[in-house]
Amino acid sequence: MPKTITVLTETVSYSNRAFDVVDQNIELPSGLRVVHSTVLHRGAVVILPIANDGKLIAIRQYRHSIKKTLLEFPAGTLSEGEEPIACAKREISEETGYGAKKWVDLGTMYPAPGFCNEIQHTFVARDLYPNTLEGDPDEVIEVAPLSVAEVEAAIASGELCDCKSISIFYKAKMRGLF
Amino acid sequence: MPKTITVLTETVSYSNRAFDVVDQNIELPSGLRVVHSTVLHRGAVVILPIANDGKLIAIRQYRHSIKKTLLEFPAGTLSEGEEPIACAKREISEETGYGAKKWVDLGTMYPAPGFCNEIQHTFVARDLYPNTLEGDPDEVIEVAPLSVAEVEAAIASGELCDCKSISIFYKAKMRGLF
Repeated sequence: MPKTITVLTETVSYSNRAFDVVDQNIELPSGLRVVHSTVLHRGAVVILPIANDGKLIAIRQYRHSIKKTLLEFPAGTLSEGEEPIACAKREISEETGYGAKKWVDLGTMYPAPGFCNEIQHTFVARDLYPNTLEGDPDEVIEVAPLSVAEVEAAIASGELCDCKSISIFYKAKMRGLF
Repeated sequence: MPKTITVLTETVSYSNRAFDVVDQNIELPSGLRVVHSTVLHRGAVVILPIANDGKLIAIRQYRHSIKKTLLEFPAGTLSEGEEPIACAKREISEETGYGAKKWVDLGTMYPAPGFCNEIQHTFVARDLYPNTLEGDPDEVIEVAPLSVAEVEAAIASGELCDCKSISIFYKAKMRGLF
């Protein structure tokens, strides 16, 4: 897998400042022809910042798409042409008020591969220091430093229910980074 | 949080068989007015099937949105008006060829809360038995039974890089379900 999939036609049917939607007529290996629609996304970074006292720097962010405030780790969308590590250094400062002297690349992951091409570049950030950048004025964020045990309890209780945040936490835990 | 967010106008700008996109003009607590666009999704289920020999039933599925075959746990979108557990019982049979006599509800999670309202209902399925339902003809899937150690190795190596699958695995591991 995959055998050959042929794109017969494609149309960008929708665009906004964050994503486009492309509709494709495709022919599957079986010969079946179907319409496949993809949300085209620039990609993003997800960051697990570990403070010098061992706490993990989470945030509480209001997410208008689901009308809830979620407990998450910091993240953000790549600007046009931006390298993932540069985006991560910008986002950690905008969202948490910290910079980091050490970065560990934890690889990439996909949040919604069924209908969206977003790729998330994941990093652990260490040796933190105060470094506040002004954040996006349309983001509503509170910084929430939590112990490892508190993060685990929040996942177990369902309070931490954001897939990218659960995933980066577990990837870092497996690597023995906290 | 959140303080009051006021929706001034909203327009459904795009629709396909899987999702819509709604554009809203909203006023933030600060008084700032911005456009917020949300992918409207019917919600989904994610299933971690545990076979009677202890193997976890993963699948390899071609994802046209990212032009890659991913290692994942079975999942699927809710049909109109479908209860999550009914969807889970349908999807496990369609995607893996198994039914399950015991189901454990692991709660809900959000794969892409920045721009999509999708909620994922997570279940562990046990006491499996053969029960094949014909799957969607447009899905290209191979069943991949893996030991717990093989799943951990696949997450560590980056081969298993699907957020919903990493998340449900860790949630089930924390609950001591394997």
